[in-house]
Amino acid sequence: MKKYVMTIGYNGKGFYGWQKQPLLRSVQGTIEDVIFSLTKQRVEVFGSGRTDAGVHALGQVAHFEIETNLEAEFFKGILNHALPDDIEIIDMKICDDDFHARFSAHKKTYLYKILNSPKKKIFEGDFVGIERLPLNEKKMQECGDMLVGEHDFRGFCSSQTQVTNFVRRVFAINVKREGDYIFVEVTGSGFLYNMVRIIVGTMVDYSRGRIGRDDVLHALKNGDRSKSGKTMPPNGLYLKEVNY
Amino acid sequence: MKKYVMTIGYNGKGFYGWQKQPLLRSVQGTIEDVIFSLTKQRVEVFGSGRTDAGVHALGQVAHFEIETNLEAEFFKGILNHALPDDIEIIDMKICDDDFHARFSAHKKTYLYKILNSPKKKIFEGDFVGIERLPLNEKKMQECGDMLVGEHDFRGFCSSQTQVTNFVRRVFAINVKREGDYIFVEVTGSGFLYNMVRIIVGTMVDYSRGRIGRDDVLHALKNGDRSKSGKTMPPNGLYLKEVNY
Repeated sequence: MKKYVMTIGYNGKGFYGWQKQPLLRSVQGTIEDVIFSLTKQRVEVFGSGRTDAGVHALGQVAHFEIETNLEAEFFKGILNHALPDDIEIIDMKICDDDFHARFSAHKKTYLYKILNSPKKKIFEGDFVGIERLPLNEKKMQECGDMLVGEHDFRGFCSSQTQVTNFVRRVFAINVKREGDYIFVEVTGSGFLYNMVRIIVGTMVDYSRGRIGRDDVLHALKNGDRSKSGKTMPPNGLYLKEVNY
Repeated sequence: MKKYVMTIGYNGKGFYGWQKQPLLRSVQGTIEDVIFSLTKQRVEVFGSGRTDAGVHALGQVAHFEIETNLEAEFFKGILNHALPDDIEIIDMKICDDDFHARFSAHKKTYLYKILNSPKKKIFEGDFVGIERLPLNEKKMQECGDMLVGEHDFRGFCSSQTQVTNFVRRVFAINVKREGDYIFVEVTGSGFLYNMVRIIVGTMVDYSRGRIGRDDVLHALKNGDRSKSGKTMPPNGLYLKEVNY
């Protein structure tokens, strides 16, 4: 039995998210099916975490165990050949027995890409969140700075979550403008359901003056979802990196 | 009554083609619905021709007549604002009464974009035709050169066509490589159903040695569809320009 760890990129547009679901196309299910078709072994591929429908990955990490003698680089090659055009195994290697893509992860970085321009970009809709009116990236950074640190983030997650511990540590939030685009990078110990999309939505609403400093602090201290901002669409979100 | 002509760009991915169809999202239907919602007038928008599901446009041209005093540039602005993110009115102006987007057109140029690389580009699947194995752009050009001129192109169109006159003039076919991409531009008096996609597929098959010079000439002289090449997928095709 060997254990492999993969770094994976995927275009979230064509998937109902990372997680395997009956009858729906998922990244996990697609990779498991391809491994089965190549090796005739039904393995479970464990990701560092789920991503929602429409959310992309530049560096999702996942592991699986399998009975094989395949050299990792060769295995990667045949997987990429057999996988559809919207999934890429970027890196693959043998890992230690005690490695776990989810439980061994120390931090994760998400990137949110905003198209902030009145110009139409007809080919980019699946890959950005669109905010036509001007955003102020300094104001957005100011809001982001309030959220850095260890907090109870229940005011910044979807009510559909099933977790009971809402404390997470956000290590850094960085806002950068490049022409018509604003890039927001959020690094944390882990994230609640929709947390990055709500953090970015809060920064957008704060920049627009729809919510103020007190609202953000209230949402953070009292876990009040009604004081934080909107949930940005999944299209602009990329799981960029997982660190171990 | 005023007559307007528009130059339109759209991302074909989200549409069942240009042409209005009951219950299906089309470019023509979407524009007509938006004009109705803004003006309460039901107009018919006449395009230079149809494009299939998944085919993009950088410069589709269409006209319509309407009772209004709106200045063209202002009309364009409110249309763009009301249209979804995957359609853009690039240019709009008042035209002569006898202008017709379809019947006044002298020539059309299509661009076909091929990703010709073993590298995966997970975010580009909707926007290119993928050919992983190396293509020879000189061979492709050699094949293209055979097709230039006035010919009966019944061997280069889908059997589902309903036309009876298959004679078209191809003015130019130009192949250009840029890194991992091959761009094929085809300019003609007009095109049959699937004709550009079959022309490019023939060039690809010719480059691969799957069909030879005699096959291409046979397809051209005898209208034999079995001698021309495959039909390339719609994803890589762009209606680039219509000239009047």
